[in-house]
Amino acid sequence: MTVVYPRGFQANGISCGIKKSGELDLSLVVTSDLSAVPAAAVFTQNLAAAAPVQLSRTHLQINGGMAVGVVASSGNANAATGARGLEAAKRITTALSSYLGCAPSDLLVCATGLIGIPLPVERVEEHVPQVSSGLSEHEEAGQLAARALMTTDTFVKVEALQLNGFRIGAMAKGAAMISPNMATMLAVITTDAVVESSRLHSALAAAVELSFNRLTIDGCTSTNDTVIALASGASGVSPSGEFEEAMYQVCQSLADKIAMDAEGASKLVRVTVSGARNDSQALAGARKIAESQLVKCSFLGEDPYWGRLASELGSASINFEIDRLSVSYQGVPVAKDGVSLVEVEDSLTALMAGREIEVVCDLGLGVGSATITTTDLGYGYIDENKGTS
Amino acid sequence: MTVVYPRGFQANGISCGIKKSGELDLSLVVTSDLSAVPAAAVFTQNLAAAAPVQLSRTHLQINGGMAVGVVASSGNANAATGARGLEAAKRITTALSSYLGCAPSDLLVCATGLIGIPLPVERVEEHVPQVSSGLSEHEEAGQLAARALMTTDTFVKVEALQLNGFRIGAMAKGAAMISPNMATMLAVITTDAVVESSRLHSALAAAVELSFNRLTIDGCTSTNDTVIALASGASGVSPSGEFEEAMYQVCQSLADKIAMDAEGASKLVRVTVSGARNDSQALAGARKIAESQLVKCSFLGEDPYWGRLASELGSASINFEIDRLSVSYQGVPVAKDGVSLVEVEDSLTALMAGREIEVVCDLGLGVGSATITTTDLGYGYIDENKGTS
Repeated sequence: MTVVYPRGFQANGISCGIKKSGELDLSLVVTSDLSAVPAAAVFTQNLAAAAPVQLSRTHLQINGGMAVGVVASSGNANAATGARGLEAAKRITTALSSYLGCAPSDLLVCATGLIGIPLPVERVEEHVPQVSSGLSEHEEAGQLAARALMTTDTFVKVEALQLNGFRIGAMAKGAAMISPNMATMLAVITTDAVVESSRLHSALAAAVELSFNRLTIDGCTSTNDTVIALASGASGVSPSGEFEEAMYQVCQSLADKIAMDAEGASKLVRVTVSGARNDSQALAGARKIAESQLVKCSFLGEDPYWGRLASELGSASINFEIDRLSVSYQGVPVAKDGVSLVEVEDSLTALMAGREIEVVCDLGLGVGSATITTTDLGYGYIDENKGTS
Repeated sequence: MTVVYPRGFQANGISCGIKKSGELDLSLVVTSDLSAVPAAAVFTQNLAAAAPVQLSRTHLQINGGMAVGVVASSGNANAATGARGLEAAKRITTALSSYLGCAPSDLLVCATGLIGIPLPVERVEEHVPQVSSGLSEHEEAGQLAARALMTTDTFVKVEALQLNGFRIGAMAKGAAMISPNMATMLAVITTDAVVESSRLHSALAAAVELSFNRLTIDGCTSTNDTVIALASGASGVSPSGEFEEAMYQVCQSLADKIAMDAEGASKLVRVTVSGARNDSQALAGARKIAESQLVKCSFLGEDPYWGRLASELGSASINFEIDRLSVSYQGVPVAKDGVSLVEVEDSLTALMAGREIEVVCDLGLGVGSATITTTDLGYGYIDENKGTS
């Protein structure tokens, strides 16, 4: 189920001609009655933030955390496009709001795809009537909206859950944290719970921090990364703390789907650093390991080469004493007090042959702990990213 | 020419059985009369520094910056090997010094290869007579010493020059900054110039900072990286500032050879960031670009995809305003004031087909400038690094 699973939302996805392939590339999610509802967003921290990111930030501010919906286009990121790019983003929200009968600032905008190339904005403008008139609350419409976000993604990423009377639905795209040709991680999350903007923002920010922000494919921070949440209130239910937990679950599930679809990757890897001086040192250590090209190659090779983990931890700018390090792969200890425990057994190699790998490094220095999700580095990543054509 | 080109040095390289292939794996360079001479070294900053690094640091300190020579072994890095690893390194210098008739602390020791696996130190001990008795001042002996450093290297890396009466000779190994199976960058530099330890150290540290430390293959910092210099004084020449310049030239030449031999790489790429607030911001920006998997894939594809450079600069934690950014590839401007100048022309694509690529990003914010040397990311890197076997 999708973004239209929660009550009070309609969606659509069409092809407007940004992608030469003719695949879906224009996605729209708005409230059913076109009223503005509490909205929240988390954007990329990249200083080269794309035009849609800049405009969405402004709109959310103007509207005091309220929005009618989100329009997203794929195939062109409208990033590194200067004043002309910002103008293009404005033209999209202007044309759409005029057709729908709301203010331009009621709409948030996202884009994903090639950067540094002008967005063919007239194609989006021409298709405003088509994408708007096809809006629907039916499941298929939510599926179309999710498909229209995709770039190098190989499958549609949607998620939904129901809990004590309220619902959350979501869609995302992403196949590397920033990718390539086609860039970025985008997600739109809808709920019919009754939550105010400030709470929606807190819940979203916390969930993103523990899910998307703990996923690394290639260590690159996209110019366009955006996660948006909208709360219609249509369930009439004011949830307790279970709302925050549900938001996290939805985000984590989407993050895992993005990892599973990482370009050229064949493994989903959870890297945990425990026993650090504190949580933030654990996070820095886990991130250093998870972003290492060398380590990611050994995941592809299903090789429990723990010495590489030690080497990354030793250069992670955290407190580290190799004589206190213990390492396990798939729950099997391979190193203790900084030295190898045994020659690697065939049974461990066999345990690493599956789709998921679990690595734990205990630094033996404290109680700090953190987990980062990553993937192996495969030939397909290079294939996907070596050219724009 | 090699480390025996400067007067007053002898060398040898043999196979002692660390490498199962039977290739050369034990390298020795010492002064011709076995006297201690001024010595200097720059070591990895990795907190998981290997046993040979720890021992060499101690020996240099004990001896007040003097040494007789360097023994290096390849095939096993003696890293992440705990107290047993340190004992192994000591046994090597003890056996060798006893045979040569000097103190253990007169010898520096290096190792490169697999990490986390005990070094078969008895094989080194057994071969002390063979490696020592074969020491020679002849060119072939210097070549053998250089070959005995190699791991995944595909060619021998040596360098030599003569200048106003003094000589410098050098050998290095390295095929990724830290690699893989077989790890690390090692270099041994000899000179017959008359220079004291402190000057030798300053010259070496400055040269390393501007050469090896501005080369990045995969962003990994090895547990074993070591550069050692020895000055026999046998020329009787006390050089002027030309010595410092010559040291830099030798180091830069070795660094370029390492880049040219980077695992799976087909391009040598110079990334310059200019117009930064200051040099250190320029360096941080150039390094962020040079270490980006995404950017390195586009070098492989000969694709002047400047948007990726903008995205990296935007997330490099430096002052950056995309509206001031100009980018050129091979001297051809592709972006100005943060927007594309033209559709990429065929002529530019043709210019990128060669072995070397030059990229310049002008931030338009100041006069800071720095250059980092890197390579593309190719399929061979993954091949080389996915397993230990």
